[in-house]
Amino acid sequence: MKRIAVFTSGGDAPGMNACIRAVVRGAVYHGIEVFGIRKGYNGMIAGDIFQMSSHSVSNIVQRGGTILKSARSKEFMTAEGRQKAYDQLQAHGIEGLVAIGGNGTFTGAMIFNNEYGVPTVGAPGTIDNDLYGTDYTIGFDTAVNTALDAVDRIRDTASSHDRIFFIEVMGRDSGYIAIQSGIAGGAELVMVPEVLTPLSEVVETLKQGWSRSKSSSIIVVAEGEEEGNATEIAERIKAQVDGDVDIRVTTLGHTQRGGAPTAYDRILASRLGLGALEGLIAGQKNVMAGIINNELVYTPFEDTIRLPKPINEDLLRMVKILSI
Amino acid sequence: MKRIAVFTSGGDAPGMNACIRAVVRGAVYHGIEVFGIRKGYNGMIAGDIFQMSSHSVSNIVQRGGTILKSARSKEFMTAEGRQKAYDQLQAHGIEGLVAIGGNGTFTGAMIFNNEYGVPTVGAPGTIDNDLYGTDYTIGFDTAVNTALDAVDRIRDTASSHDRIFFIEVMGRDSGYIAIQSGIAGGAELVMVPEVLTPLSEVVETLKQGWSRSKSSSIIVVAEGEEEGNATEIAERIKAQVDGDVDIRVTTLGHTQRGGAPTAYDRILASRLGLGALEGLIAGQKNVMAGIINNELVYTPFEDTIRLPKPINEDLLRMVKILSI
Amino acid sequence: MKRIAVFTSGGDAPGMNACIRAVVRGAVYHGIEVFGIRKGYNGMIAGDIFQMSSHSVSNIVQRGGTILKSARSKEFMTAEGRQKAYDQLQAHGIEGLVAIGGNGTFTGAMIFNNEYGVPTVGAPGTIDNDLYGTDYTIGFDTAVNTALDAVDRIRDTASSHDRIFFIEVMGRDSGYIAIQSGIAGGAELVMVPEVLTPLSEVVETLKQGWSRSKSSSIIVVAEGEEEGNATEIAERIKAQVDGDVDIRVTTLGHTQRGGAPTAYDRILASRLGLGALEGLIAGQKNVMAGIINNELVYTPFEDTIRLPKPINEDLLRMVKILSI
Amino acid sequence: MKRIAVFTSGGDAPGMNACIRAVVRGAVYHGIEVFGIRKGYNGMIAGDIFQMSSHSVSNIVQRGGTILKSARSKEFMTAEGRQKAYDQLQAHGIEGLVAIGGNGTFTGAMIFNNEYGVPTVGAPGTIDNDLYGTDYTIGFDTAVNTALDAVDRIRDTASSHDRIFFIEVMGRDSGYIAIQSGIAGGAELVMVPEVLTPLSEVVETLKQGWSRSKSSSIIVVAEGEEEGNATEIAERIKAQVDGDVDIRVTTLGHTQRGGAPTAYDRILASRLGLGALEGLIAGQKNVMAGIINNELVYTPFEDTIRLPKPINEDLLRMVKILSI
Repeated sequence: MKRIAVFTSGGDAPGMNACIRAVVRGAVYHGIEVFGIRKGYNGMIAGDIFQMSSHSVSNIVQRGGTILKSARSKEFMTAEGRQKAYDQLQAHGIEGLVAIGGNGTFTGAMIFNNEYGVPTVGAPGTIDNDLYGTDYTIGFDTAVNTALDAVDRIRDTASSHDRIFFIEVMGRDSGYIAIQSGIAGGAELVMVPEVLTPLSEVVETLKQGWSRSKSSSIIVVAEGEEEGNATEIAERIKAQVDGDVDIRVTTLGHTQRGGAPTAYDRILASRLGLGALEGLIAGQKNVMAGIINNELVYTPFEDTIRLPKPINEDLLRMVKILSI
Repeated sequence: MKRIAVFTSGGDAPGMNACIRAVVRGAVYHGIEVFGIRKGYNGMIAGDIFQMSSHSVSNIVQRGGTILKSARSKEFMTAEGRQKAYDQLQAHGIEGLVAIGGNGTFTGAMIFNNEYGVPTVGAPGTIDNDLYGTDYTIGFDTAVNTALDAVDRIRDTASSHDRIFFIEVMGRDSGYIAIQSGIAGGAELVMVPEVLTPLSEVVETLKQGWSRSKSSSIIVVAEGEEEGNATEIAERIKAQVDGDVDIRVTTLGHTQRGGAPTAYDRILASRLGLGALEGLIAGQKNVMAGIINNELVYTPFEDTIRLPKPINEDLLRMVKILSI
Repeated sequence: MKRIAVFTSGGDAPGMNACIRAVVRGAVYHGIEVFGIRKGYNGMIAGDIFQMSSHSVSNIVQRGGTILKSARSKEFMTAEGRQKAYDQLQAHGIEGLVAIGGNGTFTGAMIFNNEYGVPTVGAPGTIDNDLYGTDYTIGFDTAVNTALDAVDRIRDTASSHDRIFFIEVMGRDSGYIAIQSGIAGGAELVMVPEVLTPLSEVVETLKQGWSRSKSSSIIVVAEGEEEGNATEIAERIKAQVDGDVDIRVTTLGHTQRGGAPTAYDRILASRLGLGALEGLIAGQKNVMAGIINNELVYTPFEDTIRLPKPINEDLLRMVKILSI
Repeated sequence: MKRIAVFTSGGDAPGMNACIRAVVRGAVYHGIEVFGIRKGYNGMIAGDIFQMSSHSVSNIVQRGGTILKSARSKEFMTAEGRQKAYDQLQAHGIEGLVAIGGNGTFTGAMIFNNEYGVPTVGAPGTIDNDLYGTDYTIGFDTAVNTALDAVDRIRDTASSHDRIFFIEVMGRDSGYIAIQSGIAGGAELVMVPEVLTPLSEVVETLKQGWSRSKSSSIIVVAEGEEEGNATEIAERIKAQVDGDVDIRVTTLGHTQRGGAPTAYDRILASRLGLGALEGLIAGQKNVMAGIINNELVYTPFEDTIRLPKPINEDLLRMVKILSI
């Protein structure tokens, strides 16, 4: 393999730049030419492709977002789109790809490989940590710390005013951000999509707290929680508790996506970028590089896409004990 | 004056603890006994009053929220409530008060003084910076930096995805947080209650940006903006621009209230706490301590309550120049 | 076991409070009485022991330092000291201990158990991550991020002035903080006690950088590096490179010990505090609770004390590739 | 005036990029061509000069350091150096300059103007806040908050171990950073170059603290303090207090120079950059733009260079009261 390209796709995540840097510098180290593709599959189709050098990735390891920009591509879902993308790669002499993204990205890469034989190795870049095949995804640790910072700030107000706060964090299908920011933030309860939390349990927890004269409470809710979003849940709880309870809701939203990556995310991203590149050089394809138990592993895209990532139920148990 | 009390009232703001500390240590320094009242006027009515010493305020200068807790009191708006409050102060031998809060707090103090002759000096504690009689209020600088941190994070995603973001910050009657976080965050436009921004101007600004191939834009909206909240404005803009524009909305909410105060807020809070105390000792009453042009000044409550605080229109002009 | 006590000993580390909280609330959950001992073994000897409840550990999960205070005790190294300590534990009816600290702490606990039969389970609290028996110690992740924040700040100046900076981080016997903050901070070289870096290699790396017109460089040095401390190394390098090279040194020092713990450290501390407590209840003694490959494990004190913790040499290789 | 240039010179300071951005976008707004000069006077001499557009300063408002790089130039102190610089400016058709820096920078500009008639308006960029003619300099607020963050972290360890810490902050001739970070950090004492603090007073303060059973203390020392640097002072204090006092020293160093600027610094830098530019357009020369009492003012270079900036002694008084 003499020439490869790297791109980011799907939602951006802190650490993507550190990952791009590792792919580019790893390629330089191994004597391979490396190109960047802007805006994911859209840029591949449009030929927004440029050569990168060691210098192209100077001073980016600490930056959030992605210097290659990202997009979700509808055109790549069509046969015509993929044909154009292939033609562009051919025109640039690109023989293999490193794709930084999530399951949508990997699904596209798998279909593309089946049709055109272009090998792709993936690196898991998504704040949600919802990918099978790696303990953690790039961006997750930063997102948890950003959410935690918000929980800490809100606790100041909750304590000062004896209030109950429902805080909605990201995680459409996954409660990882909710559980980790909830435990770390000392939440009384964490509501996640993976495990049903009946509203009666929420009411029970709040009442138990009051009986121990806990006057403020924080409940962290993942956006994908079955009982509805934080605002809906708060409304229903308000209807079920008597008297003058002061309940507020905060939805953290897109602030969780950005910011300078944590040390953990930069190191993880560097290892996975280098791992994906070196896997590609060694002949891997249709796999995602991951770190499980501190070891680099490659998991077939079809598994990362198909298999659910179980949540650590020990952690949910811990929330209960620690909020006693 | 031999014995005074301090309390916080209204919405909490970062730096209130630094202010409490300055009042308490200032009282110790001047040989005056000092008491704390918990939960604002509610605690005054309920007699939730306790003696404080230098040690009571150790290690709090860096903490958000208020160790004295805060509340908005309906009972104090009644003659019976104020009678009970006065009886409690009498029972504890308290001769004067330092009230840390906003206009609601000062209105209560003024009425109370007229009825019972208890002198109160105020210190402006509110993140909104909407009080006449001081350049800045305690908590404002921290809130601006918290909002700015969110703007910075969101810009990472906005740039990576070529998106337009509407970010709603606090400020029901005041655009101070919006203007300062907007300028500092490099926003394309800032919408504030003090100055009407027609939607046509928003559309114009976005289109001008596109014509200069600016692909991402950030618009900061104060919650009290006349055109509606950020979600409503975003909806209406979406309807007015053609094609496939990706517009998102984030509402920062209560995260802006908490967190460790900045250096500026801790110093301001210390100066105002000490200034309020020393004013009270010197015989002031029904006034708020403020800092204008770096000088300590006392402004009558009736002025802080009645007079509007003008916004610096030079700053609005600057937004336009800087986003060119 | 009906009554246990918890204490912190040795250097303080962010997350110790989260660990204390987990021990206390875990004990409450399991119906066991729990006491706190102030200032480590010194407080045990002096009888500075007090009962704790769920409420004692409210609002501390986010705080650096340790509410139980810490100390290194010379008196506990004497037979008389340990006799007094035992008498105090007897007087308070304490049947078992959770010790949060490092190898000095565990050595004391082991000797104490051998002499008096008081079972102790340890939790690894030290920023250095130099303990065998756990992947990470409590406080390490926070210290790395604090060091990284400094590296990021210094890079601003290094780039602006084309300077070379030597940054000394903590780690007397261990290069963990240096390696992780170095990789994450994009350092050109990392010097650690575990692997000798000859000065000639440092000079070579700097010259290679210049040949690629890298004008600024950052070299992270662990304080225990064999070639001397950062200032000494910088002096010697200056003597070996020709001409007008601008070399500066910054020693991060004690700032690395404090601060609000990261999410990772709070969760790790919570798991290890609970794990240590539940181990003690289950009859463990003379062991340290650790997390290896995401599983809770108990390692005998004699192993944590005796066995070296190997550094991940893959990471050192990665520094070279990434700084190309 | 049709074409101007902007450069940064002297030590870098957070906010310089925001200032460059304001100069560039202000020039675009006013229809003037704007060039950037790299590495201060060195780049002017070497002709390292390039045209800038609105897009050149996108996405830099939040970055520490300076994209134009900075340097202290020995060659510009020679007549030959200045001749070359003038020739380069002539060759590029540059009619006026905005210089972002401190007194060294302004001295050079004044001499240059006297010799060659090139008008320069300055903007005060230095973390030390030691320039007459403005209440605050660009970078000062960020440096204070960075120092404060370190003080907060160290207080965690000081409290946990009952230790005394001497923390040395930047400020060769000026105690501004020391005073502000000291008050905000709750220091027991602040030592500054402007006011002699005899060692006997330090010992007295520490002893008074102990008599009130304050077990930990923080003393902030400006690097230019007459009694010596923090390490020397700590040594001498150690010799003067009896018994087993645990005294530590931390020197914050270059971490204070970098980092994302605070909101305050970004707004100040924007106002001063625009103010300097508009002054230049209006015919000003040999003056520095400053903000005094929230008004834009222009002060002759000879005054900013010659006149001392007095320190606010009220703040020193406040340290004493607040540490009681």
